[in-house]
Amino acid sequence: MSYEIKTGKEQETPILWTGDFYNEGTGSGDIFDTLKEECGVFGVFGHPEAASMSYYGLHALQHRGEESAGICVADGRDFNYHRGMGLVKEVFDKDKIASLVGDMSIGHVRYSTSGDSRLTNAQPLVFKYRDGDLAIATNGNIVNEPLIRKQLEQSGSIFQTTSDTEVLAHLIARSPKDFVEAAKDALQQLVGGFAFLLMTNDKLIVASDSHGLRPLVMGRIGEAYIFASESCALEVIGAQLVRDIEPGELLVLDKNGLLEDRFTEPKRKALCAMEYIYFSRPDSDMNGSNLHSARKRMGSRMALEAFVDADLVTGVPDSSISAAIGYAEQTGIPYELGLIKNKYTGRTFIQPSQELREQGVKMKLSAVRSVVDGKRVVMIDDSIVRGTTSRRIVNLLREAGAVEVHVRITSPPFKNPCFYGIDTPDRRDLIASYKTIEEMCEEINADSLAFLSPEGLISSIGGHNKDDYKGGLCLSCFDNDYPTQVDFGGAEKDGCSC
Amino acid sequence: MSYEIKTGKEQETPILWTGDFYNEGTGSGDIFDTLKEECGVFGVFGHPEAASMSYYGLHALQHRGEESAGICVADGRDFNYHRGMGLVKEVFDKDKIASLVGDMSIGHVRYSTSGDSRLTNAQPLVFKYRDGDLAIATNGNIVNEPLIRKQLEQSGSIFQTTSDTEVLAHLIARSPKDFVEAAKDALQQLVGGFAFLLMTNDKLIVASDSHGLRPLVMGRIGEAYIFASESCALEVIGAQLVRDIEPGELLVLDKNGLLEDRFTEPKRKALCAMEYIYFSRPDSDMNGSNLHSARKRMGSRMALEAFVDADLVTGVPDSSISAAIGYAEQTGIPYELGLIKNKYTGRTFIQPSQELREQGVKMKLSAVRSVVDGKRVVMIDDSIVRGTTSRRIVNLLREAGAVEVHVRITSPPFKNPCFYGIDTPDRRDLIASYKTIEEMCEEINADSLAFLSPEGLISSIGGHNKDDYKGGLCLSCFDNDYPTQVDFGGAEKDGCSC
Amino acid sequence: MSYEIKTGKEQETPILWTGDFYNEGTGSGDIFDTLKEECGVFGVFGHPEAASMSYYGLHALQHRGEESAGICVADGRDFNYHRGMGLVKEVFDKDKIASLVGDMSIGHVRYSTSGDSRLTNAQPLVFKYRDGDLAIATNGNIVNEPLIRKQLEQSGSIFQTTSDTEVLAHLIARSPKDFVEAAKDALQQLVGGFAFLLMTNDKLIVASDSHGLRPLVMGRIGEAYIFASESCALEVIGAQLVRDIEPGELLVLDKNGLLEDRFTEPKRKALCAMEYIYFSRPDSDMNGSNLHSARKRMGSRMALEAFVDADLVTGVPDSSISAAIGYAEQTGIPYELGLIKNKYTGRTFIQPSQELREQGVKMKLSAVRSVVDGKRVVMIDDSIVRGTTSRRIVNLLREAGAVEVHVRITSPPFKNPCFYGIDTPDRRDLIASYKTIEEMCEEINADSLAFLSPEGLISSIGGHNKDDYKGGLCLSCFDNDYPTQVDFGGAEKDGCSC
Amino acid sequence: MSYEIKTGKEQETPILWTGDFYNEGTGSGDIFDTLKEECGVFGVFGHPEAASMSYYGLHALQHRGEESAGICVADGRDFNYHRGMGLVKEVFDKDKIASLVGDMSIGHVRYSTSGDSRLTNAQPLVFKYRDGDLAIATNGNIVNEPLIRKQLEQSGSIFQTTSDTEVLAHLIARSPKDFVEAAKDALQQLVGGFAFLLMTNDKLIVASDSHGLRPLVMGRIGEAYIFASESCALEVIGAQLVRDIEPGELLVLDKNGLLEDRFTEPKRKALCAMEYIYFSRPDSDMNGSNLHSARKRMGSRMALEAFVDADLVTGVPDSSISAAIGYAEQTGIPYELGLIKNKYTGRTFIQPSQELREQGVKMKLSAVRSVVDGKRVVMIDDSIVRGTTSRRIVNLLREAGAVEVHVRITSPPFKNPCFYGIDTPDRRDLIASYKTIEEMCEEINADSLAFLSPEGLISSIGGHNKDDYKGGLCLSCFDNDYPTQVDFGGAEKDGCSC
Repeated sequence: MSYEIKTGKEQETPILWTGDFYNEGTGSGDIFDTLKEECGVFGVFGHPEAASMSYYGLHALQHRGEESAGICVADGRDFNYHRGMGLVKEVFDKDKIASLVGDMSIGHVRYSTSGDSRLTNAQPLVFKYRDGDLAIATNGNIVNEPLIRKQLEQSGSIFQTTSDTEVLAHLIARSPKDFVEAAKDALQQLVGGFAFLLMTNDKLIVASDSHGLRPLVMGRIGEAYIFASESCALEVIGAQLVRDIEPGELLVLDKNGLLEDRFTEPKRKALCAMEYIYFSRPDSDMNGSNLHSARKRMGSRMALEAFVDADLVTGVPDSSISAAIGYAEQTGIPYELGLIKNKYTGRTFIQPSQELREQGVKMKLSAVRSVVDGKRVVMIDDSIVRGTTSRRIVNLLREAGAVEVHVRITSPPFKNPCFYGIDTPDRRDLIASYKTIEEMCEEINADSLAFLSPEGLISSIGGHNKDDYKGGLCLSCFDNDYPTQVDFGGAEKDGCSC
Repeated sequence: MSYEIKTGKEQETPILWTGDFYNEGTGSGDIFDTLKEECGVFGVFGHPEAASMSYYGLHALQHRGEESAGICVADGRDFNYHRGMGLVKEVFDKDKIASLVGDMSIGHVRYSTSGDSRLTNAQPLVFKYRDGDLAIATNGNIVNEPLIRKQLEQSGSIFQTTSDTEVLAHLIARSPKDFVEAAKDALQQLVGGFAFLLMTNDKLIVASDSHGLRPLVMGRIGEAYIFASESCALEVIGAQLVRDIEPGELLVLDKNGLLEDRFTEPKRKALCAMEYIYFSRPDSDMNGSNLHSARKRMGSRMALEAFVDADLVTGVPDSSISAAIGYAEQTGIPYELGLIKNKYTGRTFIQPSQELREQGVKMKLSAVRSVVDGKRVVMIDDSIVRGTTSRRIVNLLREAGAVEVHVRITSPPFKNPCFYGIDTPDRRDLIASYKTIEEMCEEINADSLAFLSPEGLISSIGGHNKDDYKGGLCLSCFDNDYPTQVDFGGAEKDGCSC
Repeated sequence: MSYEIKTGKEQETPILWTGDFYNEGTGSGDIFDTLKEECGVFGVFGHPEAASMSYYGLHALQHRGEESAGICVADGRDFNYHRGMGLVKEVFDKDKIASLVGDMSIGHVRYSTSGDSRLTNAQPLVFKYRDGDLAIATNGNIVNEPLIRKQLEQSGSIFQTTSDTEVLAHLIARSPKDFVEAAKDALQQLVGGFAFLLMTNDKLIVASDSHGLRPLVMGRIGEAYIFASESCALEVIGAQLVRDIEPGELLVLDKNGLLEDRFTEPKRKALCAMEYIYFSRPDSDMNGSNLHSARKRMGSRMALEAFVDADLVTGVPDSSISAAIGYAEQTGIPYELGLIKNKYTGRTFIQPSQELREQGVKMKLSAVRSVVDGKRVVMIDDSIVRGTTSRRIVNLLREAGAVEVHVRITSPPFKNPCFYGIDTPDRRDLIASYKTIEEMCEEINADSLAFLSPEGLISSIGGHNKDDYKGGLCLSCFDNDYPTQVDFGGAEKDGCSC
Repeated sequence: MSYEIKTGKEQETPILWTGDFYNEGTGSGDIFDTLKEECGVFGVFGHPEAASMSYYGLHALQHRGEESAGICVADGRDFNYHRGMGLVKEVFDKDKIASLVGDMSIGHVRYSTSGDSRLTNAQPLVFKYRDGDLAIATNGNIVNEPLIRKQLEQSGSIFQTTSDTEVLAHLIARSPKDFVEAAKDALQQLVGGFAFLLMTNDKLIVASDSHGLRPLVMGRIGEAYIFASESCALEVIGAQLVRDIEPGELLVLDKNGLLEDRFTEPKRKALCAMEYIYFSRPDSDMNGSNLHSARKRMGSRMALEAFVDADLVTGVPDSSISAAIGYAEQTGIPYELGLIKNKYTGRTFIQPSQELREQGVKMKLSAVRSVVDGKRVVMIDDSIVRGTTSRRIVNLLREAGAVEVHVRITSPPFKNPCFYGIDTPDRRDLIASYKTIEEMCEEINADSLAFLSPEGLISSIGGHNKDDYKGGLCLSCFDNDYPTQVDFGGAEKDGCSC
């Protein structure tokens, strides 16, 4: 039996994370639900085991989206695809992978807000159009999508999903040009941050927005080409990392091999800094830097910028562990396991009721009493979004006996919403947009609070590019300097829409 | 976790009935796989329990399609829907039904050929277009759909399903007129046999093709209106049958109540005779006749047209039991249980391997030795398609000891493919199209073979209409007289495409 | 993931049929829940595909128990087994059957009351004891089991199930004799009606109680021996029926072939009459009679004993259809489809709420208005237990317009509880135990009511045995003449305990 | 539908970890399959939400056993229980937890070798005996169980599981004494290392073997008592750690509250050192030490005992991360993420085929090229069992470019099998039992290899007890000094049998 999750704007869906008090927001990486709206893409060209490779590659990208997964394979004549709600390992089994025969494929893992959580939005989306089959997988957000969608509807288009991808398919189908030219034209109309994989019966197209806002890398294994949101997905299948896809690039892979083209002139490189700070896996490389090492440098730099004497350093798991170790190394204060993540994961886990939580049943995070009791603690985290979660973590440490809690955030204050694929609260809910650091410190009940400077962040990432004072990064959530137009008179879209 | 069945023209799907030697075709009703391509629709207007009603109504129509099921409910603002592969009882559970809040709904159960067996084709299909939400459920086939689809693709349309319904949605969305007028225009362009339920956020539209080829009835329960492919679905929810929907009718239900309109002039009534012969449930009424009684009359008439002396009468289960009882009543020959259906149903059932079948493990049908051993048997069946299955059943009876097997078919020879919703083999595979009755008798290894005359069939059905020498029936599979144009220069579609 | 249904005397279980108003009792065969407490057993000796054979054989016996299924296979060294809650087709898949390697096996399907509905009771039960492995599958009930269990507990035995079978295993394990002799000794201590299959690593033992109360047949396919509760399970795998197992018989199959032995002297043959009346499948044979034919004879005889003029005859599906056809044949009154069963089957089906039922949503059975409206109806049923269901069915017919409803029951009044494997209400709830036929007629709102005479029943079954005035049947539920002692001072057990 | 996993000594089971090349053995903590044979127990006395508490508590103990989970609750009259194969979150859902009403409970999570992997062995085991219901949950192994089982079988006992627990139940049931005395007598007969929770309808009994070989702690939340294998399970539900259960203790909890008794005189305390080294969670405390801190101390001490200059330190995840950080802190060599665990977890994950692995698809562990390329690496691991896995990990690092790999093992050489609950290979397969350290270094392809000294281990654990030169630890796997008799003339049992 097979299911499609029902939809409807206001419907609760079966995968909603109910009862989770951390839901209200934090930047504390993968243990919290906000700031998670991301996706991962994975493409294969020229490998007879394309579906198996995609299975392992998408699994390595699972942290980028746990809601749905899909793989579409082309065998030269037809598409074979399978999509489902859930983790890669839940959606696919041996028989399904075995049935996906072909040597070219695109795959996708996806998060989404609950309202749009339905199978019809699961990617890769697959269409029939004039010239045959078309499949698309995306990571990112098209800011002007509502405007384009409205124009298309006015001229008679019907939509079956709420995904940006469907807009791109319409634009391509309505163009009188050939597929590659039509794709270029269509991509040029889009404003936003995105990485696209498009597949027809005989072609794979790979494209990145004109600022390279979302990560996308190319690798090779034997004669085959692999494309992935992060390099860890290359590593896991034994492929070698070749390079990052550049802003505005459009690669065409077909029987003639790889054609390196572009659909627009590149603008300043502006890769999402949050990918470095916590989204991406610590074993991934971006622009030549290993992310665990980069995060350790953020911790080290933090120690230089805002040292505080203490008995131990602890990191909010999982994303801040690397930075905490860096802080400890720099200062000589021992790194201890003051906080532990309870892996209450999976849709089927029964979340503790309010009553049980009041009785003391711990949620995803708990403080280790025997470690922190009577101690002065430096707590490293990667960001503060609303502030409520930071306050809770500080209080967990205090309840476990910590006598001082000094919070060090390895990024600048998070003040502005993202329009390029990360689902952030409204600006008015971002605590850093309306409070001073002192007020925030009081709000989260810390003894001291410090944020990493933008310069410290850029220098830690190490991607400093002489031509670019921002080091090739998008820092708009910190500095409000969006690389693209973001205001379309109310017809713009923020968050993630892959 | 939720699934979508992969697709691809040539892919085997997980629900394919492999290893079933009856697959190759027969008219022997619900135990065989061919001649099954049908669907069922069910609509509710004005009942607060629309989803529950649909659940029971669709369950009563389950014999019309076991592959997928879906319900879409409107609550005045949004659509809530759920579709899945499998039986109604598998696709829905209490929580899902409870979440489908609203007082207007359309629902669907569906068969399909294996190649198109995928969740994206499951109905009701749901679209977003200029004016809001649109859902469609269909039973039938649009003969000129490929032509219309090609035109739409040429003008830039993209398709996500292979269903006719998507064509109708495009035609409506591209019309500059208001919804009802747009629907009328669109329906006028369609050639074929179909029953449509269309739903927007505030309207339910019910339409039947200009010949009324597919059954569709209206009922009432309290103030609510119910629409269903068969009256048994009204009965099960306690609704009263009001009337059949007439050829070319278009009903509009909205806040103003019921508007009885039409989108085209009616042509001669031509309801599918196979609905009477075996598709519909014996407890359904069509045009005022109960189908069990009609089938008994076919058996009685058969006895008058082609009596043969014998020791017992048996029917091929399930669809020919009624006719066999009629034959027995008319002749006084006892009705016995000479054949029994093994309910090897459900996708999960392990079909016997070829080796086990050779060792004697029985498939769906077996003969009861203690009943038929040493006996002269009259075997009643409803149709012969390719002849292979009839031959097997005759041989089952002979192997169980029957000394004579006289086959009586309660319909005329099946010679022509259906273009209106029944999936039939090519004409060249229909044994009656290339063999005489004597040759067929030999082919199926019977001692005698007779078919019911067209007059006998029409008279048994009892829907004789003085103005219409065919009694309001479509008999094209028997007499090659198709009510509509069926040849569009190669761009026509046969079988079922709901 | 795998489950065991929780247990506990008073626990509701997930498979309880809640909300089903027919629950309260009736004899109306397989559409109702009471009088269903039965089991089916299936054994194979000497066939390399023992597990596959068991799968098809148990499927054919599925009507005897839908709650759990299990197969245990011996390969000469070890047992391999699998048991689960649900239907045969749900519990087993291809991989599971393939993993059950061996040429000797015993299998089981089971019903039970809700309180004992748990996986630990699913059979075959498997034990380790002094001499190796032991598996047991049972159909029936041991009346003195509580007494034996108590004695065993007093001497230090621990029990993991509530099944009778565990008592038998303890008795065998505690005997100092060899396995066959220990089994004989143990069986001699048991009072009741039962059919047992016992398997060790190298032996299959088949036994029937001293009256042969429960059906059990032997068949052969090639060199292999097959044992089954009903002959339909032989037919489906292509095996030939050899004979019924006789009262008190004990067959031993091992490397020396078949040894026909007995553990006790046979007493008068007393096969459960209800097996003929409605439990067994109509295509099964018992004592040489086909059951459909026997039921037709019951209907014919009923017509002779209590003719009433009417417009049509209808049977309560499924078990009374045969008898209704017999009544119609005898009288010339046409058999019509006045009642139809809605196949609301399966644990997952959402039963209509009380509210929906009041609005008219039909339960398992509905009357066909177009058939019965304005008609005088003879309604054939197989038994009346509490009377409430009969009353409801009569009322369904009246509400659908029947002007007269004459009820004909093809068995004598059901007055006494069963101690041999059928779960019956207490005597005080059996309507025939405290009301006259006239009072019952009024109670069920019929125009007339008649029961088949015991003589009519015996003669219809046709198993008349000159030495036995009861025709080799147990009629204790009708005549209170129990073949065995049934009262053990309060320590007796009724119903089914397989 | 519910399942029981089939059994049979030599049967492959569906949860077998096939295709995993790490299967062959290593001590590298939770990423490898050997040395994992452990269980976890959790008990509640006097809390109305006993089942919910157990759910969260067992989840916190999930690392101790991922194969099956079970909870049995007593409500004063009856037991309600549920057990299943799989993770705690898979086995239980809201409805199941809600149905387990009662304020006293015992729960269990379990690993096992594949041959015994079946639902019937899932704990808590539940029995009926003379005095009512009895449930038992165990962690550990009874060395003389085969001897006792054989004696019981000889006197007529039947067994349904292969678990030690069943032996204990038989011993209790056969004793003429009252329950508590019977339990004491039974426990005295057992030789081995075990922690037991026993529950009757009105009593909870908690017992630890005479050496306290397996960990077991007591906590309190409000008036309720909680018992758990590790303190992390107390922390997660908000309970306060009170103390460890002492060797030979037997606690009785009933309506009179807590009675602190013992069933035997305590012998020297000998808690399993491997619990400190890698089994237990880093946030658990044992004998007052936090385990993360203890492991850091092992790493520090290692640095003092066997310093080597290098560019980075990395730990084999997850269990050796703490020690690696300690080594780095002590030496100033940076801790880097040189190895990353791929969380290919869950029974449903498709393990890479041999062919794919040869093509480079990584298994559970991979080396991070950008971190280790060109570097001298200190690789910290917790143990070497067969040596094959250590060799593979060293080679992974070399293939990723490491120029030197120095292996530091934070425990002494592992030379002797465990008889107290850890499933170890035969002595002849333990590489340290037949090779020198130099030979091992060569075998695993390391540049240098060092093991922590026993003194270093004892001092790091910090549980030094003046009266006990071994610090209250069992070090028998290192020093062959088993606290109990382990040889019973061939009738002994090693590994884990919970």
